[in-house]
Amino acid sequence: MRLLLINPNTADSITALVADHAGRILGDEAEITAVTGRFGARYIASRSAAAIAAHAALDCLAEHGPGADAVLLACFGDPGLEALKEISPVPVVGMAEASCHMACLLGRRFAIVTGGERWGPMLQDFVAAQGLSGRLAAIRTVAPTGGEIAADPDGAVRLLAESCRACAGDGADVVILGGAGLAGLAEPVAEQAGIRVICSLEAGLRATVAAARLQPARTARRAPGTGTDSTGLSAALRHALTALR
Amino acid sequence: MRLLLINPNTADSITALVADHAGRILGDEAEITAVTGRFGARYIASRSAAAIAAHAALDCLAEHGPGADAVLLACFGDPGLEALKEISPVPVVGMAEASCHMACLLGRRFAIVTGGERWGPMLQDFVAAQGLSGRLAAIRTVAPTGGEIAADPDGAVRLLAESCRACAGDGADVVILGGAGLAGLAEPVAEQAGIRVICSLEAGLRATVAAARLQPARTARRAPGTGTDSTGLSAALRHALTALR
Amino acid sequence: MRLLLINPNTADSITALVADHAGRILGDEAEITAVTGRFGARYIASRSAAAIAAHAALDCLAEHGPGADAVLLACFGDPGLEALKEISPVPVVGMAEASCHMACLLGRRFAIVTGGERWGPMLQDFVAAQGLSGRLAAIRTVAPTGGEIAADPDGAVRLLAESCRACAGDGADVVILGGAGLAGLAEPVAEQAGIRVICSLEAGLRATVAAARLQPARTARRAPGTGTDSTGLSAALRHALTALR
Amino acid sequence: MRLLLINPNTADSITALVADHAGRILGDEAEITAVTGRFGARYIASRSAAAIAAHAALDCLAEHGPGADAVLLACFGDPGLEALKEISPVPVVGMAEASCHMACLLGRRFAIVTGGERWGPMLQDFVAAQGLSGRLAAIRTVAPTGGEIAADPDGAVRLLAESCRACAGDGADVVILGGAGLAGLAEPVAEQAGIRVICSLEAGLRATVAAARLQPARTARRAPGTGTDSTGLSAALRHALTALR
Amino acid sequence: MRLLLINPNTADSITALVADHAGRILGDEAEITAVTGRFGARYIASRSAAAIAAHAALDCLAEHGPGADAVLLACFGDPGLEALKEISPVPVVGMAEASCHMACLLGRRFAIVTGGERWGPMLQDFVAAQGLSGRLAAIRTVAPTGGEIAADPDGAVRLLAESCRACAGDGADVVILGGAGLAGLAEPVAEQAGIRVICSLEAGLRATVAAARLQPARTARRAPGTGTDSTGLSAALRHALTALR
Amino acid sequence: MRLLLINPNTADSITALVADHAGRILGDEAEITAVTGRFGARYIASRSAAAIAAHAALDCLAEHGPGADAVLLACFGDPGLEALKEISPVPVVGMAEASCHMACLLGRRFAIVTGGERWGPMLQDFVAAQGLSGRLAAIRTVAPTGGEIAADPDGAVRLLAESCRACAGDGADVVILGGAGLAGLAEPVAEQAGIRVICSLEAGLRATVAAARLQPARTARRAPGTGTDSTGLSAALRHALTALR
Repeated sequence: MRLLLINPNTADSITALVADHAGRILGDEAEITAVTGRFGARYIASRSAAAIAAHAALDCLAEHGPGADAVLLACFGDPGLEALKEISPVPVVGMAEASCHMACLLGRRFAIVTGGERWGPMLQDFVAAQGLSGRLAAIRTVAPTGGEIAADPDGAVRLLAESCRACAGDGADVVILGGAGLAGLAEPVAEQAGIRVICSLEAGLRATVAAARLQPARTARRAPGTGTDSTGLSAALRHALTALR
Repeated sequence: MRLLLINPNTADSITALVADHAGRILGDEAEITAVTGRFGARYIASRSAAAIAAHAALDCLAEHGPGADAVLLACFGDPGLEALKEISPVPVVGMAEASCHMACLLGRRFAIVTGGERWGPMLQDFVAAQGLSGRLAAIRTVAPTGGEIAADPDGAVRLLAESCRACAGDGADVVILGGAGLAGLAEPVAEQAGIRVICSLEAGLRATVAAARLQPARTARRAPGTGTDSTGLSAALRHALTALR
Repeated sequence: MRLLLINPNTADSITALVADHAGRILGDEAEITAVTGRFGARYIASRSAAAIAAHAALDCLAEHGPGADAVLLACFGDPGLEALKEISPVPVVGMAEASCHMACLLGRRFAIVTGGERWGPMLQDFVAAQGLSGRLAAIRTVAPTGGEIAADPDGAVRLLAESCRACAGDGADVVILGGAGLAGLAEPVAEQAGIRVICSLEAGLRATVAAARLQPARTARRAPGTGTDSTGLSAALRHALTALR
Repeated sequence: MRLLLINPNTADSITALVADHAGRILGDEAEITAVTGRFGARYIASRSAAAIAAHAALDCLAEHGPGADAVLLACFGDPGLEALKEISPVPVVGMAEASCHMACLLGRRFAIVTGGERWGPMLQDFVAAQGLSGRLAAIRTVAPTGGEIAADPDGAVRLLAESCRACAGDGADVVILGGAGLAGLAEPVAEQAGIRVICSLEAGLRATVAAARLQPARTARRAPGTGTDSTGLSAALRHALTALR
Repeated sequence: MRLLLINPNTADSITALVADHAGRILGDEAEITAVTGRFGARYIASRSAAAIAAHAALDCLAEHGPGADAVLLACFGDPGLEALKEISPVPVVGMAEASCHMACLLGRRFAIVTGGERWGPMLQDFVAAQGLSGRLAAIRTVAPTGGEIAADPDGAVRLLAESCRACAGDGADVVILGGAGLAGLAEPVAEQAGIRVICSLEAGLRATVAAARLQPARTARRAPGTGTDSTGLSAALRHALTALR
Repeated sequence: MRLLLINPNTADSITALVADHAGRILGDEAEITAVTGRFGARYIASRSAAAIAAHAALDCLAEHGPGADAVLLACFGDPGLEALKEISPVPVVGMAEASCHMACLLGRRFAIVTGGERWGPMLQDFVAAQGLSGRLAAIRTVAPTGGEIAADPDGAVRLLAESCRACAGDGADVVILGGAGLAGLAEPVAEQAGIRVICSLEAGLRATVAAARLQPARTARRAPGTGTDSTGLSAALRHALTALR
């Protein structure tokens, strides 16, 4: 299976990190291509940066999508998710989307622990748009940064475990560690926190593989419709819009 | 009052039409500047085109926003609305947003009549994100195009009046004619349909003026936060993101 | 534009206060007539007082409505709002209704700061009936009384600013100062609180003017139906019920 | 048990009808006093008439409430229900309120068959305010009038049975015949319709008796609070407001 | 009236306690038969125990139901409620179901005080399935056990009164003391707590009697459908499933 | 990976069918053990049969669960799902649960096509309990039986494709073919229907594998709590309840 990972942040280092973790998680289950947004914020941390990232993600998909069996939008918060699904003939899954739905399989109510203060209300709106507000116990937006994790891995795990325990107090059965930057920490954090903890990147990958196997390209939706002319876009994206059925 | 109208469609002709109607509606209440998206679909009619338009609207706001007292996002469906609100020091109001909330003042349940088949589920999601699903009676996406209106204005009014009557049967007290292309038709349509009908452009303009007077720039929100570096954006948009408090 | 302000409290002093503020806010935009409820509580502060006030507001509208271009129900909590809309040929807007919908244009989640302990659950039900519970961050019912504001204006502003900051902590982007008694305080309170703050009276006035312009009487709804005979009502109200189409 | 029936319609003939049916239903379980609204519409069939009826119901309760063990607000639609509960030391139950909650005990989803076109959206709002929209299958507002029932009882039963069957098609398990005018018809209608059918008057009476036994006056709520001065009300109602704790 | 009380706990002592209280509450209003689950947990305190209890309750109903005029499922949490309703020709009412709906008649928002930590989320889901989440103020799962009540009745009342006062602070108007083990304590607790308090067993009994009178067996639903063959069940239950219309 | 398939229907032939399809779908990804309910309905098609099946599924899990890495509850409608999750140290996924959440990844709104008239309202309640009512476009309960599929496979596909097309008209983007009996038909049905169609068994298997990999037993939830004594259960189930932490 060929899997396209789209990182709509413009920091290549995040893409490399995601690709590395993804390779370790999936092993030879999938051949992974990871691409980075051509324009927009280095680190998406606001509604405006996310809006630009939606365009950048479409741009990536138009350029690199052909040939992929499935696509993972690898930015927790999933900028542009519904638009990507619209133009793609193969399944596109978002990292936050997958995490929320997988969390529902593992517990009655879930919580999210992630970094970036502005992400709190953005994720609340995202979960509501998924229809899952009733199953959300809490969102906590204090998390160690990549730098802090590198400098003090044990401290980072302790801090995250504390947040996860607080989420249990909010009524959560399972906690999502949201964001590629926290990849690899779910297991040690769960160990300390005494509650189910899942990694958003792994949830995204597992769900994307499952979706791709469940819905191979040959049975994918063929919606009616007509494309529209456009201006100022990359040739690939212009083509994708025009070809929109 | 200086009012910035952002048309994120890339067809200049729509911008001119909107500006013309807006001038007639507001008279000397406001000095209007109308700008067109620099890139994206000529006519936004899909989720992917709307996602790109959100970026284009931000780009317009960063370029032309300084000096405005208020901003109207003049595309029914309001691509990028929350992102624009985030970076703007003055009120930003969306044409669909304003229409829905004004309609709530005029009736217990409202309906939307607009063109473009794909807009149906998009607007359903939009109304849900506003929290107003419980007050939405129906969305009907059959409407005459600009060309059809020009060719047969009476036929267009008859067609729209018929849709509005059907909305009354769905339980609506008031109907929104959604989209700049239907500007100017609310009054004759209401006449024939026997139900309250409002023009989305006029609703947008009235609500924007009201919001701007209610919330002058000097009392506007000053949210905490830190901007983020970016790449590949217009200088003005890059600056706006970086300056994000 | 002729604007009828209905104060369903029976304290004339509030009516005078409201009329005075309204005149200053609208200037020559509208010619204002302000009327007081003929019967009921001096200060509406309970569900029973509000139920009586709904009748009193209908009584006012039947007596003073003819000739008005729009009506503002100037009691935060809007007793009888839907009933007034039913019998009026011109738009009727409630002060709380307008505040909630205008607040939605200015922020993603709003809060209400007002006086009167019983108003808490009453306003919670009111917001739910508007369909906006999902956008309500908090209701706080501690506010200085008119007497306290007159005795110590600076202290009142400080107290309100503190409440507004607490609302920001609850997730609000914008706070409504609810009630005519708090008119004129939004700007200094916003200054101290560092969050958007709106005056419910001004929101009511701006929204009423916008609604009246958007929906002039000649295009208003003409609902079918037949009136009903009644007893023990003012002649004007009896007539209004009988004429109900 | 002394039961006060409040009919806020001002037609004495309805009160007599209700009292007569109630006596037959409860037998010697309760001593019934039935009172009629002093002012307002003869037949409540609009939001404005209902708003006035809320005041009239409060007026009745203040005048005739003392000494009662429980109160049934005997107008399907329950004008002023929450206000009556507020000033009463003993349980007040509404006929529609009781019917909806009793219907929930008897089926998963319920429907309402009643007369009066305007009652449709009013009852929809009422059910929503009860929190029971998710259990409402349908509201049908075509029902024979009192005159029609008297003239052709068999035809009336046939017509109602047909409506009830249509409600079963809408997914209802149980149907409420709403309104005192339909009292006595539930059994023959159920016979023909092949679905559970309940009489709103009987549901109101059974639930009121149950509530009164469950919650005798001596354990009733003693809420804090302070009354408020008023003007233009009956002496009894003025006293009730002032005494409001 | 013949009333069947089903206690799906397998501890006979609880059944005896329930029957004793029920006899005192209903006096000669009903002839009561109380039965105990044949298999399952002695005290139901988990989702798995409740799932087994649903089967046990069906088994009881099939064995002992014939001849009853109504059935009360006397375990707060109502395991198997919808299934029992399905196979019963006479009304089946659950103790928690009845308590929630009766509480809605007595207050705008209700709370639940009961024992057993796991019951918290189970009851939250139960209330949601009833459609009443919007009217639930709080669930508190700390309550004295039967042993503790017997050892120190005054202390038990004090502890419960404290919980009820905390519920008032959560916005509740009325509190349900949930569980047969707390039967008989509502009145002294209300006395101390200063808020309406209802006994779940009495609420269940009152509502069951009301439902049975409202909906005598001869007008009960006769749903279409065909039974299904089964294996390994009691003869009575097998017959009930096969006879399912 | 060792996967336990629990079929709570008591017809062994269904278990064999499910196991056969599952083996073909998963190949060597998992070693599958499939078990059949010891008691209850041969074909679960009512709330009462489903309530008994919940007990039977727990009984299976207690007997056969030890050693499994994950469990699929292979009856569309998932009787006892939350109870199984409670007692299992490894992930338990339901076939309907998995189908709904996977469908959400593949489309904005999903529909269900399955057999058995009574399943309609049962599944509506199930989807609501998942929190996904807002994403459900329709449930259609007309489907060919196993016998009909065997007799006329082409006709069965045509019939199902027609239902799926009707779901598209209801606004669905993706349709779930619910029930093990329809396994293997998704692809030919999608071919004819022109809409995404997924097989509930495959969705269940894919999601269970994904959940098991995401949440290996060693990081699973360890909830506090104490077991409870029981009577009349299988030794294994009695032990599972007692060991419940």
